[in-house]
Amino acid sequence: MSTEHSSTEHTGTPASSADTVAGLLGQIADVGRDPKRGGYSRPVHSDAEHTLREWFREQAARRGLDVETDRNGTIWAWHAPGGRRENAVVTGSHLDSVPGGGAYDGPLGIASALVAFDRLAERGTGGARAIAVFGEEEGSRFGVACLGSRLATGAISPERALALTDADGRTYAEVAERSGLDPTHMGPDPDTLARMAAFVELHVEQGRGLVDLGSPVAVATSILGHGRWRISISGEGNHAGTTLMTDRRDPMIAAGALVVRVRDLARAEPGARATVGRLQPIPGGTNVIASRVDVWLDVRHPEDAVTAALVEQIGAEASRLAADEGCTATLTEESFGGTVDFDAGLRDRLAARLGDVPLLPTGAGHDAGVLNAHVPTAMLFTRNPTGVSHAPDEGCEDTDAEAGAEALADSMELLADTASTAPERPLP
Amino acid sequence: MSTEHSSTEHTGTPASSADTVAGLLGQIADVGRDPKRGGYSRPVHSDAEHTLREWFREQAARRGLDVETDRNGTIWAWHAPGGRRENAVVTGSHLDSVPGGGAYDGPLGIASALVAFDRLAERGTGGARAIAVFGEEEGSRFGVACLGSRLATGAISPERALALTDADGRTYAEVAERSGLDPTHMGPDPDTLARMAAFVELHVEQGRGLVDLGSPVAVATSILGHGRWRISISGEGNHAGTTLMTDRRDPMIAAGALVVRVRDLARAEPGARATVGRLQPIPGGTNVIASRVDVWLDVRHPEDAVTAALVEQIGAEASRLAADEGCTATLTEESFGGTVDFDAGLRDRLAARLGDVPLLPTGAGHDAGVLNAHVPTAMLFTRNPTGVSHAPDEGCEDTDAEAGAEALADSMELLADTASTAPERPLP
Repeated sequence: MSTEHSSTEHTGTPASSADTVAGLLGQIADVGRDPKRGGYSRPVHSDAEHTLREWFREQAARRGLDVETDRNGTIWAWHAPGGRRENAVVTGSHLDSVPGGGAYDGPLGIASALVAFDRLAERGTGGARAIAVFGEEEGSRFGVACLGSRLATGAISPERALALTDADGRTYAEVAERSGLDPTHMGPDPDTLARMAAFVELHVEQGRGLVDLGSPVAVATSILGHGRWRISISGEGNHAGTTLMTDRRDPMIAAGALVVRVRDLARAEPGARATVGRLQPIPGGTNVIASRVDVWLDVRHPEDAVTAALVEQIGAEASRLAADEGCTATLTEESFGGTVDFDAGLRDRLAARLGDVPLLPTGAGHDAGVLNAHVPTAMLFTRNPTGVSHAPDEGCEDTDAEAGAEALADSMELLADTASTAPERPLP
Repeated sequence: MSTEHSSTEHTGTPASSADTVAGLLGQIADVGRDPKRGGYSRPVHSDAEHTLREWFREQAARRGLDVETDRNGTIWAWHAPGGRRENAVVTGSHLDSVPGGGAYDGPLGIASALVAFDRLAERGTGGARAIAVFGEEEGSRFGVACLGSRLATGAISPERALALTDADGRTYAEVAERSGLDPTHMGPDPDTLARMAAFVELHVEQGRGLVDLGSPVAVATSILGHGRWRISISGEGNHAGTTLMTDRRDPMIAAGALVVRVRDLARAEPGARATVGRLQPIPGGTNVIASRVDVWLDVRHPEDAVTAALVEQIGAEASRLAADEGCTATLTEESFGGTVDFDAGLRDRLAARLGDVPLLPTGAGHDAGVLNAHVPTAMLFTRNPTGVSHAPDEGCEDTDAEAGAEALADSMELLADTASTAPERPLP
């Protein structure tokens, strides 16, 4: 049943085989532009992200793929010869962005996947394969990165995920339901994981590694351990004009000092990165002494124990600085994922197949890092001429983007060859 | 024509003479509550503020007052015997709030004015009088406090006012037009100012002065000089996970250090108050090194030259701290009003009439401070048991609120007596 011929009939002649990665990204270049911050703001379940998801569904349908959205909000576009969605090689990425992000973080992986599927169809590559579009990869709206893949793998409980709130105080349950999802059916999805023979994610590089190495593509070795914490410093809100300097319990003073201390502590720890990129005084009026300041903390280090020790130090400093101002501080973990080392055998086979491309670690988190615990997983990086990421200057040359898509197709072909030798599983 | 009898006929029997200040405030107690910050968020031209303005119009109409909104968006409710809107004693305040503000800052003055008008009608007090509701007194949405009174007096040009933007990037012109105002007709309004014989504003006290003095009411002596500046610190946005600590140009570090320096510099200057209550990292993502941070600065001092020198010092510190991080800083004045000393003769006559109530200065800005340069102006304060303002804990006992309204009626009666001895002016 699952011959290459019937597969080609099933997907139809790829009407879009002339598509390039740059051409596909050009189609969405106007969606979710942020005139204030520059770049793109495409938070999960925003109008912009919904427009992108609809665009993806159309592109997948044009290629004859079967498109459906699962109960965790992940879109799946299947090429399943004979309807057999098993032993599948899956690629995927995300369409949501950080606020004021670049054009490539996420969408490059999706556009490259569409072009790679065109290449595989042209080559007549057999077997089941799919493109997955995960939601809230950035965690920019609800605070927890890779929320879609965490839900599917059980790395976050549905109860906790549904109770997460955005900046407007709306719960993930509320927002997901308004987007047509059923919050009562979210959570671990072992069936979907069991269908995956392998997962490979292509992503724009978020540093200048490939510029220095002179290569358009690399294979990932590891993802740096990464967590997010929220520090709330509470004092006494009051009038900025009528309250004497000596009568204040101003949490902004402690928050300001803390931002500097976070940097100093991270600098003192080799290999550590710690950042405060989000900080919110409450209520946030110019003529108002804040009653509370929320400070979000991003900490990364190859060794999870060092990350934990650094965060503990930062928490102690927050308490001390708050006490100096008559304020109090609390520290809450929003998410943590330890350092991920991708399977070395798979990584080396891929690098060899792609022409001995370089191997690179990354400091950025990805759905591939979450899936790695459940499915043989690999990642590819495409060169970024500026090295900048999570900002409008993020870049990718058109020729590098095409090389990336070609490498993704080659990788999926290699993984399909491996998958086809795996024992058959009966249809469910 | 302008006898007291015809005046009473004109306004009708006050159907609402049983209203209390607390009762009136109770009617709007649910409008604009802020579940996230606590208290009230009623920014100018928001749904909440529009609801309050509609409530005021209804209350004024019930009292037989002629209500109209002028071209600068100020609502006027006139008691004008014989239709003569001249030589008028005016009271007024505002209905907009800071984010997460209390129930009394603004609305207490409006509710007290309505009750004072009931008392004056009962007493048969003659002459023209009006209640003015000014817009954007807090400057919480468009950055410039007392925007309505500044426009009317020419303290801000309409060009500058119309170009002000809110946090969503909408101009004041755009927002005002959507609220039914005509942006092309805003600006100085000498005719309206010429109709005012005197202006008196009642406001909740924004400190514990009256608690310590054991009095429900005070008369104001002065308003502390007050300005707002915006400091923008620009660096390089990038990825929080992939950018080494040593490769960063992070404006948050400079902003954090600046917040502490602002406090230290203000502490070193006797009588000065300097506050950072609003700070916005851009783009503001947890996993993003900010590309820019906007820091709003509120500085007050009795001597304008000291305020100027302090702001210059803070600006120099911002540049130095920014340079330390490879960043740059700019400082922009958003508004400035020098210290206002209210007319001492008027002030003393009022205090005597009210039973030798205490005299108090204030650190907070008010429309009365703007009007003082154009019209004989006075202010009354009503006791605030917590002393807290611009925060949900702001308070006012019901009996003090009634005493305040009574004092406002007495003050307007005294001012009406003075106005009636002024030379008559012909109708325009």
